[in-house]
This record gives sequence, structure tokens and C-alpha cells, in this order.
Amino acid sequence: MTSMAVTNIGELVTNDPAAGHGRLGVLPDAALIVDDGRVAWVGANALAPAADTVLDAQGGAVLPGFVDSHTHLVFAGDRAAEFAARMAGERYTGGGIATTVAATRAAPDEELRATVERLRREALRQGTTTVEIKSGYGLTVPDEARMLRIAFEASPETTYLGAHVVPAEYADRPDDYVALVCGAMLDAAVPYARWVDVFCERGAFDADQARAVLAAGVAAGLAPRVHANQLGPGPGVRLAVELGAASADHCTHLSNADVALLAGSSTVATLLPGGEFSTRSPYPDARRLLDAGVTVALATDCNPGSSYTSSMPLCVALAVREMRMTPAEAVWAATAGGAQALRRTDIGHLGIGARADVLLLDAPSHLHLAYRPGVPLIRHVLHNGVLT
Amino acid sequence: MTSMAVTNIGELVTNDPAAGHGRLGVLPDAALIVDDGRVAWVGANALAPAADTVLDAQGGAVLPGFVDSHTHLVFAGDRAAEFAARMAGERYTGGGIATTVAATRAAPDEELRATVERLRREALRQGTTTVEIKSGYGLTVPDEARMLRIAFEASPETTYLGAHVVPAEYADRPDDYVALVCGAMLDAAVPYARWVDVFCERGAFDADQARAVLAAGVAAGLAPRVHANQLGPGPGVRLAVELGAASADHCTHLSNADVALLAGSSTVATLLPGGEFSTRSPYPDARRLLDAGVTVALATDCNPGSSYTSSMPLCVALAVREMRMTPAEAVWAATAGGAQALRRTDIGHLGIGARADVLLLDAPSHLHLAYRPGVPLIRHVLHNGVLT
Repeated sequence: MTSMAVTNIGELVTNDPAAGHGRLGVLPDAALIVDDGRVAWVGANALAPAADTVLDAQGGAVLPGFVDSHTHLVFAGDRAAEFAARMAGERYTGGGIATTVAATRAAPDEELRATVERLRREALRQGTTTVEIKSGYGLTVPDEARMLRIAFEASPETTYLGAHVVPAEYADRPDDYVALVCGAMLDAAVPYARWVDVFCERGAFDADQARAVLAAGVAAGLAPRVHANQLGPGPGVRLAVELGAASADHCTHLSNADVALLAGSSTVATLLPGGEFSTRSPYPDARRLLDAGVTVALATDCNPGSSYTSSMPLCVALAVREMRMTPAEAVWAATAGGAQALRRTDIGHLGIGARADVLLLDAPSHLHLAYRPGVPLIRHVLHNGVLT
Repeated sequence: MTSMAVTNIGELVTNDPAAGHGRLGVLPDAALIVDDGRVAWVGANALAPAADTVLDAQGGAVLPGFVDSHTHLVFAGDRAAEFAARMAGERYTGGGIATTVAATRAAPDEELRATVERLRREALRQGTTTVEIKSGYGLTVPDEARMLRIAFEASPETTYLGAHVVPAEYADRPDDYVALVCGAMLDAAVPYARWVDVFCERGAFDADQARAVLAAGVAAGLAPRVHANQLGPGPGVRLAVELGAASADHCTHLSNADVALLAGSSTVATLLPGGEFSTRSPYPDARRLLDAGVTVALATDCNPGSSYTSSMPLCVALAVREMRMTPAEAVWAATAGGAQALRRTDIGHLGIGARADVLLLDAPSHLHLAYRPGVPLIRHVLHNGVLT
């Protein structure tokens, strides 16, 4: 494999505090050498060693690729009409998530695969070089396994979310559904999943049910993460910390005790402002979490119901506008934060040895991701060292 | 010039109510023929006549190009640090607009021209096929003329905004500055300007000063438009309607009388949600305006201080999320509304004879512009009938 020099970098965000300039480890007037898909050297542009090929950053900012640690990319159908009705304040009787479950079950593999591929490429163009993908619109043994198999073709970061909602056919016997999720459905999911997740919320799964699902997943070799405290207060964050989950996702309705638990744990709080944007809901209080010392990640929650965006730059801009994160905190959360939420040390930074997932911006600074909302600023993406 | 057929359009937004399906005049399963830079035919895909070339819309939505009727693209420098300080709630002492005035005066023509061209292309990629450009960072006779000359190279929709702020050198004699704006500066601007504009606001220009500037511009052959009621209540809207201005821009702080005046006039209310997004300010109440019968346009206000976005799709998404416009109202406002704010009948719609400014979306419906915030959905742009 040939080596590549990325030269004339106006601002290199390494996410290595040892590099200086705060938590983002910003190096001015820098260069970066990629070799064999890894970062082989970073330093002053004037001192850059030779490489086989050169990519001129033209004074622009260079960042680690975004790590989108929470998506639901495997689905069929479209809920644009539901979105429009919600925005108009109208009551919508179209079925919500059940619509997507029905459409997903009915879709052939090829259709699901094409949707994942379309959205993965769309995300990659916007700088997302790692994407986590959940199941959860199948809710039968074969459909959950099928979703995870298709997701696993696109990403190693796959999450078994059989416990997304109780499907209609189990409405009057939810514990039987939990038993299925912990039994035959889990067995079918395990070959294609790294993570186990549960929607722990009033109207979905309670603390005991969620604990059972996560414990079964852990016993089967999966690592836990939790949809927690999105729609109201509840036991989700507590459970996530208790089980050492990599991430508690959403975190909109937190008690002081929840915040303290997160701050004292290795569980990342993953915030998903695309969801609040597209449902006109109150945003989580990122400032409170950061000030308490909680590690925060940003992700898109990309799904056809509540957040049909694949744009990590939009999430950065919303985090700054709506959640009072600084641009530096938001960029860190969208890169290193996402990596930590996936317990990955090879991505989310540009230290020596990191995977060469590298974004070249059409802008001189990471600040522009929030300063220039909506503008496609990603000029080039290196994924595993390869120009995409 | 060869003709082109755009075929297999899943949803054609014509903005011609006679076409059916509401104000957007949506045709399903449609085709469109472009000839000599104009729309020559629209109708059912199955009935489309032959053309020299074919562009397959693959079932996607097709819209008129966005008309961005309010920008400040001629400037030098960058105010990212000011933005970051504002978002952090810190007091910023860097100079604000005076920073941009100083940088713009110091910049050579080539630098200003390159910035306009970069932003115009960036906007075009996001679907903006018509862009209005204001002066207002020169504030001397030669610099205002220079800004307009450079703007006029990029767009015929140029606006003389010598009355943007009173420059520091006139701080203690603002009426002398108004006399200059109405005199020698206007004379120098007229060859390159179509419009005259004034920032009528406490701290900028009062009603008498604004009326003087607009009247002088009209006497010199320019057509009026007004920055009105952005930061607080004031006489801007009243003045705009009194003078028959094409547009009153911002319209955040309106009395009931202001709304009634707009509703009874041919003056468009141009809303600029990018500004509220990037300054964390309250959004104007679009619903109130629409319900009163006011014609509403959306524009970016693209400028390096308060709204450094060139993204009309972001403005559409913000209009729906934050200003309670329906997706259809927002798309109309970003196309036909902008055209009306520029008193243009050849753009903003896709009726027969319209300029062939056409967007092909990577999405089946105009709803997706709001439903998929931040996602670059513009697959192809025809500008004057030419694929860009």
C-alpha cells in the first residue's frame, strides 16, 4: 500500500491533548502521513517526511472522521407524511413505528441492503467514517437476524435492539416478548451483533425487563448500551451505569442522581439532537452534563420516524446552538466521544497508529462546522486511508 | 441550443396552482422539457415529447431553483471567533461589523471576487440559482461602488446598502453620512445596482434618515427594499409599505398594525432564520404573517457576522421546525416567495416560459427538505437550462 501525505493543513484536530491547544489537540500549519491505512506521522508541515502521494489541504482544517454511534439504518418505507403532520401540530393516525416495522418485514433483503448502502454513502460524504447500526424494526426472530446480517455487511458496529418496542402481536403478553428477545431471538442475533440495546422507557420496557434483556445479551457475549431517559424520567441511566454500559443514549430527562452516576462511571451520555429537531422536543442539557464531568457523545439517531438525518455536521451545529456546547466540545463529542461510546481506541482521533479516517474541510477551522450551519464543508474524506 | 427532457419525475413542484395539488402545483409522474434555457413543456411523463438529451430524475422530486433574495456575499475576513464567543455567552470585544468593514476595505478586488465566486458556487451546489447580493461593508464612495461592481459580475440582483451602519469616521455626524449615501455614494453605486436598501433600526438609521436614503435611491432609478424590525419594534415595515418596497426583511418584531399593513400591500416579508439560528435569537412568527395573508419569502442573509450559511435547504428546515411553516409553505417561500421579493416573474416557478432553473432531489418529495435536515439532497441543478 502506498503512503500519502496530507499537507498544508491550516488546523489539524488530533483529539490528542498532548499535542497542545486544549482537548482537541490542535496543531497549526501541520501535515499528516498515512501509511497502510493508519496515521504514521503528524507534525509541522515544514518537517513532513516524503510520501508516495500528496493531498494538499490548501490551508483548510483537518479532523478525525465522525463516529456516528447511534443509528437505525436498516428499514423500509418513509414517514414524511407523519413528519409533516407532526410539524403542523396535527394528530397523526398513520401508525408511527408500526408502519416501519410492517414495511421492513415486507421488504426483500435487496431493498434493505440498498437503503443501508445509500444512507452509509450519504453519511460518508458528510464525514461519517464509522457508523453504528441497530436492528429493531423486525421484532421477529428471522427479521431481527436478517436486519443484523444486513447491517453487519456495512459495519462491524451492529446492535441487537429486539427490545425496541413490543410488537402488536405481543401487546397483551409483553413478558412473553421479553422472553423471546432473551431467548431464540438473541440466539439468532448473536452471530451478527456486537452490542445489545434496550429502549427503557414508559410504554416500552421497564427496568426489570430492560435488565433481563441486557443481562441475557451480556451472557451471550454482547456488550450493553441503553436508550435511556428520552421521553421522561426513568431508570434507564441508572441501569446503564449499573451494568457498565458503554453508553446511555438520549439523556433528556435526568435527575441530579442520574448525572452524578454518569459522571462517576465509564458510561458515555450520547446526545441525539436530530431527534429533538425533528420532533420539536426540548433538547437535553449538555451543559449540565459537561459541567458535571460526564463524557458526552453526539450521534444522529438516523431513522425514518423521529430523526431522518445522517448529518453529523448538523448535530454539531445543533449542539452549539441548542445545547450550549462549545464548537470544540461538539467536535470532540462527534469524533472522540462517539469512539468512546463504542469503546474504540483506534478511531475518533489522529494520533500515531489511529485508523486513517480523516476529513479535509473546505474551511480554515473546526469552528466553521457550527459557524456555517447546513453548508456541506467536507471537501475530502479518507476512510481507512483511502480517498473516498 | 439543444433541448433536454427531465423524465421520471416522481413529484414535480411547479408553483403553478393551476397545475393542481395546492399552491405548489404538484404534478405526480411528470416530465419537463427545457429548450433554449426555458421551460418549454410540463406534463405527464408518459406524454413527454422527445428531446435532444434526457436527464432521468429516477422518481425523485423536481423543484424550481431556490431564490435567495437576501445575502451579503461581498466581504473579506471571517468572524468565527466572534461566533464562538457569542455561543459561549461571552462578551466579545473584537469589533463586530467594523471588523468586516475594515477587512473589506483592505482587500484587493481579486480577493473579494474570489469570495463571491466561492459562495455563489457553494450556494448553487445547494440549489440556489438566483442570489441577491448587497453592498454595505465598504461605506466609502469607492468601496461601495467596488463592492457593487464585483457583485454585479455575479448577479443582476444587486442592492446598494450604503446605509448599512454609520461608519466610525462619521459617528459624531450621522446626517453627513446620510447625505453622502444620498449623494456621491449613490451616484457611484447606480451603474451597478438594481435595488436600494437601508438598515432601519435603533442604532442604525431612523425613519427620516431611511426615508431619505430610499427616496434618493428611487429618484436615481433604484427600487426599494428595507431591513426592518429585526432587533426591536420600529418604523421599518411601515416605511417599506409606504414606499411600495418589494420586501421588508427580517420582520421579527411586528405590531398588529405592521402585519395588517404588510397583508394589504405588495411588500413581501422576507424571513431569515439563519440569522436567528446563528445569533440564538427568537425567530420571527411566520405563522402569524401567513395566517394574516402576508406573502412570505425565505432567504439566508449569508454574511460573516450573523448568518454565515448559504444553505436554503437549512432555511426551509428551520422555517418548519422553528417558525411553524408547513413544508409546502417553506418550499414556496424559498422559491416563488424569493422571486416575488425580487419582483421577478421569470424565476421561482416552472410554468411554460419560466427560466429553466431546476433542482433534481435525491428524495421522492419536497417534504424531505425539512424531513431530512442537514442532508445534501440536491442531486442535480439546471441553471438557465444548463446542467451545472
